[in-house]
Amino acid sequence: MSCENDLFCGVNRPKSLNPDEMSDLEKKHTPVISAPERVKAGEVFEVKVETGVFMAHPNEYGHYFAWIELYLDDTPVGRVSLQPVVSSPSVVFRVSATHSHEGKRKLRALAFCNLHGVWEGEKEIEVE
Amino acid sequence: MSCENDLFCGVNRPKSLNPDEMSDLEKKHTPVISAPERVKAGEVFEVKVETGVFMAHPNEYGHYFAWIELYLDDTPVGRVSLQPVVSSPSVVFRVSATHSHEGKRKLRALAFCNLHGVWEGEKEIEVE
Amino acid sequence: MSCENDLFCGVNRPKSLNPDEMSDLEKKHTPVISAPERVKAGEVFEVKVETGVFMAHPNEYGHYFAWIELYLDDTPVGRVSLQPVVSSPSVVFRVSATHSHEGKRKLRALAFCNLHGVWEGEKEIEVE
Amino acid sequence: MSCENDLFCGVNRPKSLNPDEMSDLEKKHTPVISAPERVKAGEVFEVKVETGVFMAHPNEYGHYFAWIELYLDDTPVGRVSLQPVVSSPSVVFRVSATHSHEGKRKLRALAFCNLHGVWEGEKEIEVE
Repeated sequence: MSCENDLFCGVNRPKSLNPDEMSDLEKKHTPVISAPERVKAGEVFEVKVETGVFMAHPNEYGHYFAWIELYLDDTPVGRVSLQPVVSSPSVVFRVSATHSHEGKRKLRALAFCNLHGVWEGEKEIEVE
Repeated sequence: MSCENDLFCGVNRPKSLNPDEMSDLEKKHTPVISAPERVKAGEVFEVKVETGVFMAHPNEYGHYFAWIELYLDDTPVGRVSLQPVVSSPSVVFRVSATHSHEGKRKLRALAFCNLHGVWEGEKEIEVE
Repeated sequence: MSCENDLFCGVNRPKSLNPDEMSDLEKKHTPVISAPERVKAGEVFEVKVETGVFMAHPNEYGHYFAWIELYLDDTPVGRVSLQPVVSSPSVVFRVSATHSHEGKRKLRALAFCNLHGVWEGEKEIEVE
Repeated sequence: MSCENDLFCGVNRPKSLNPDEMSDLEKKHTPVISAPERVKAGEVFEVKVETGVFMAHPNEYGHYFAWIELYLDDTPVGRVSLQPVVSSPSVVFRVSATHSHEGKRKLRALAFCNLHGVWEGEKEIEVE
């Protein structure tokens, strides 16, 4: 079996970020990032990361999102470890893009579902 | 040196949750929890945890909050690992109190400042 | 339902640390700590934390230990987030008890199984 | 300032894994991975990740490694959150490469120093 056919090997990315073009698996698992389109370097802005936005995902002891990570391009921003049932896979971070991130930058979120592996979503923002 | 006089031994708790009765160290470090006064068992509600609410705290590479944890009484709810500068010590969780938590329950937050140790804040809620 | 009868409410502790007196659930889930009986303050020593020592525990996508935490009394020492299948619930930390922890001290480990909740094990050490 | 000149932007990688060709900064921060050269798919093997191997790194409240992550190629394996002074940046994981990882595979470790950013080290292994 190759890595492409194994949900637990590497990181799963939807073919498109348009939900109309997503499979059900992609709709349930791809983390969706809400953030301003444009921010100023050094200023704090809110970033919400959620899964199950385009199609509901279970939050049960046997099937849940165990963690969510946020990156600014390749720079780690934060990581949340979640408990099944008692916490939902939806987290708000407060983020600052330092001066060295000027221009087009990519917020990337990873989320791990214990039955369907790691999934990545992204959102481009402009840093003035 | 006894544990009581060592900020890095055990968990630091302010003598009072009233900021007027807090020392500057307590104002800067005690995590503050925002949540509804009353929730229904099994329903999701938002819990915001922040530090530096009563007095500003630095967010520098050499002095920052590295993580925040949330508990419902003794039950772990979530844990956030934060990066200095790029992320702020303010996180919103979505929480559900299961049926077994009926009555008066305590949300407890722990936050770790790398120069002043682990601090605890709390907020009582009612679970119907 | 009271918290005592809900594996997901609070922290589960075996009635005894003697495996001959443990239930199968306790044997599978209680984290076991290996560490020197006696250490010197400020010197680094190894602490191994494992689950499934007295009775094997599954390591499957639907049933696994998602994290392990180590404390020295109430002081957080480290926390490991684990992936099902690809990593096993067995971790070695290198720990130092600072001068303020002299005398009898308790290493405590928490481990979270996604189907049976949080479990605590402990080991007393002497800090010279 | 470009990302290349900012230790806190992205991930820092030494130009060479040979310590004789490393700068002092690289010697202190690059995580070093110890693992068998060859493993069997599905069998558990030990992976030790340490920093400060080629040149000692401080472990002080103001200057420490806050976390270490291990990946098998792009697959997350585990993440350790460490406390300054009380825990050392040296962790042993028990890892299994599933059948889909046959052939040459790369163990990658990331480590975050609060004063010098995220650093990556790697080790190639063969999976039979």
